[in-house]
Amino acid sequence: MFKNVQVHLARRPDGWVRETDFQIVETLLEGPAEGEVLIKNTYLSLDPYMRGRMSDAKSYAASVALGEVMVGRTAGEVVESRHPAFRVGDQVVGSLGWQQYGLSKGNDLQKVSSPSIPLSARLGVLGMPGVTAWVGLLEIGRPQLGETVVVSAAAGAVGSVVGQLAKLKGCSVVGVVGGKAKGEYITQELGFDAYVDYKAGKLVDDLAAATPRGIDVYFENVGGEVLEAVATRLNPYARIPLCGLISQYNEKEPRGLTNLRSLLTNRVRLQGFIVGDFMEQWPQALSELEQLVLDGKLKYRETIVEGLEQAPRAFIGLLRGENIGKQLVKLA
Amino acid sequence: MFKNVQVHLARRPDGWVRETDFQIVETLLEGPAEGEVLIKNTYLSLDPYMRGRMSDAKSYAASVALGEVMVGRTAGEVVESRHPAFRVGDQVVGSLGWQQYGLSKGNDLQKVSSPSIPLSARLGVLGMPGVTAWVGLLEIGRPQLGETVVVSAAAGAVGSVVGQLAKLKGCSVVGVVGGKAKGEYITQELGFDAYVDYKAGKLVDDLAAATPRGIDVYFENVGGEVLEAVATRLNPYARIPLCGLISQYNEKEPRGLTNLRSLLTNRVRLQGFIVGDFMEQWPQALSELEQLVLDGKLKYRETIVEGLEQAPRAFIGLLRGENIGKQLVKLA
Repeated sequence: MFKNVQVHLARRPDGWVRETDFQIVETLLEGPAEGEVLIKNTYLSLDPYMRGRMSDAKSYAASVALGEVMVGRTAGEVVESRHPAFRVGDQVVGSLGWQQYGLSKGNDLQKVSSPSIPLSARLGVLGMPGVTAWVGLLEIGRPQLGETVVVSAAAGAVGSVVGQLAKLKGCSVVGVVGGKAKGEYITQELGFDAYVDYKAGKLVDDLAAATPRGIDVYFENVGGEVLEAVATRLNPYARIPLCGLISQYNEKEPRGLTNLRSLLTNRVRLQGFIVGDFMEQWPQALSELEQLVLDGKLKYRETIVEGLEQAPRAFIGLLRGENIGKQLVKLA
Repeated sequence: MFKNVQVHLARRPDGWVRETDFQIVETLLEGPAEGEVLIKNTYLSLDPYMRGRMSDAKSYAASVALGEVMVGRTAGEVVESRHPAFRVGDQVVGSLGWQQYGLSKGNDLQKVSSPSIPLSARLGVLGMPGVTAWVGLLEIGRPQLGETVVVSAAAGAVGSVVGQLAKLKGCSVVGVVGGKAKGEYITQELGFDAYVDYKAGKLVDDLAAATPRGIDVYFENVGGEVLEAVATRLNPYARIPLCGLISQYNEKEPRGLTNLRSLLTNRVRLQGFIVGDFMEQWPQALSELEQLVLDGKLKYRETIVEGLEQAPRAFIGLLRGENIGKQLVKLA
């Protein structure tokens, strides 16, 4: 028997998530049965979609039940195996949730082995967020040479990849961020052409100044006032991959988009997507992203907190935009 | 010199259109120059997009200048020709605007000659509204056998064609209308499966009852509360061809869509379009629509007022939803 530590969903948030919505629980875990592997998680990925899983509103995936382990992507190491495809010491990525140890039958695990790429990257730039950026920008946004691409939450795990991929496509790229530090990060380190700080109080004017030729692709992660401002700058035939609405996830009365007229007169395509619908593109996306990382053309940053008990607070920080780059919890 | 009667844009509406926004003007018109034809308009088409042309807000087409003739599609007869391709008596469809007579160089005129189809149909079911329905439903909505298609302004020139085409595709079709008379028209005469009366005061419940298997395609003509109600019923991968927002055209503070979450979690594609972007599809669309009309599989109705001086009032009525089917002005 192993001592395990888990984070359970204790109550469904009513508005903003609070630390008391979670409960840290110590449990005992049996070793793997025949055909199973036991994984010690090294990293837990924190992602905005988890806010949706805490709610019981209808969505594309089931809610986490009260008293159950929070769902989440994990990267770790096999510590015991009764599965022919896995050996002790194998590094694996999976969806074992907010817990120290997890059991798996192997079919949801991916073995990883690139000595030059840190394991943690498999949860960010070379994981679900990276593929989300790749799919949303390239398959839905379809940016063309010389177009203007705007991405919100631009210093985040997804947004930072979107902007760099758009630059590689020869686009003019503007990131919307909260605060100067993030703005300087995406322009000076990631090569974005400009940033707009939505907290500076003159979003519409600043966005207009940053997009003199209008907006052709808007990769949407946040919703709310940013989307409304973007709507005033859309060019004909603009595309909006709708990836997230993080500014609204904790609002009891969400703000939508009043300016549908812009979508009509500009013949805009707004398309919601989730990366899980693009399984066929994953291998190509990951292969391209990995090569870009190895070539130094795709940079990333991580914000890492230590210890599973920090996960609730870090998750709330993520929802507030306190992180830069990928938000991770280091468990080991 | 011919005496001509025109309707000019006298002022830009601030909110609801008023009759005083227009001015009836008598002018003198010279006969055609070499290469021109003179047309006596028999019918003027009134369409919701004209509200946009009265405004100076940026759009896909230029505004009508103050003191100029209102734009509009017309059907009429050549009364004098100095153009080799047109003879006196030819029936033509064009965009000569809100006036009794118009001059044309011929390149914007289509000759029509099908004794079994009334000229007026060339402005409705076999004109721009019909092609708009065809393109929006088939090219953007892409309904599949057995899916549920909802269309708003369902008794109007576009909506009535959308619903009938969707029925021909084997879909379950629900029309949203204002009032029982329109609802009975679309169900009893046009073959819609059900209607929802948005004026009945329980739109969300009525729509839910009428769409027990959710909504796969929503052909949007109106915006506002109908769109918000539809968002609660969308199925995964639903498509929303965004054709019009007539409920909002006269609002100073337009209502948008708050429930973007439904578009995200259901991976919905919302796409604004205008029929003018689909010129390549016009011949096929018109050919199919004409055959359906001749076969009695596509029905239509017209609301016709007599006399150009009635056009402003009829246009306001159209914006209020007072017409059934295509709203026309008979000029001759």
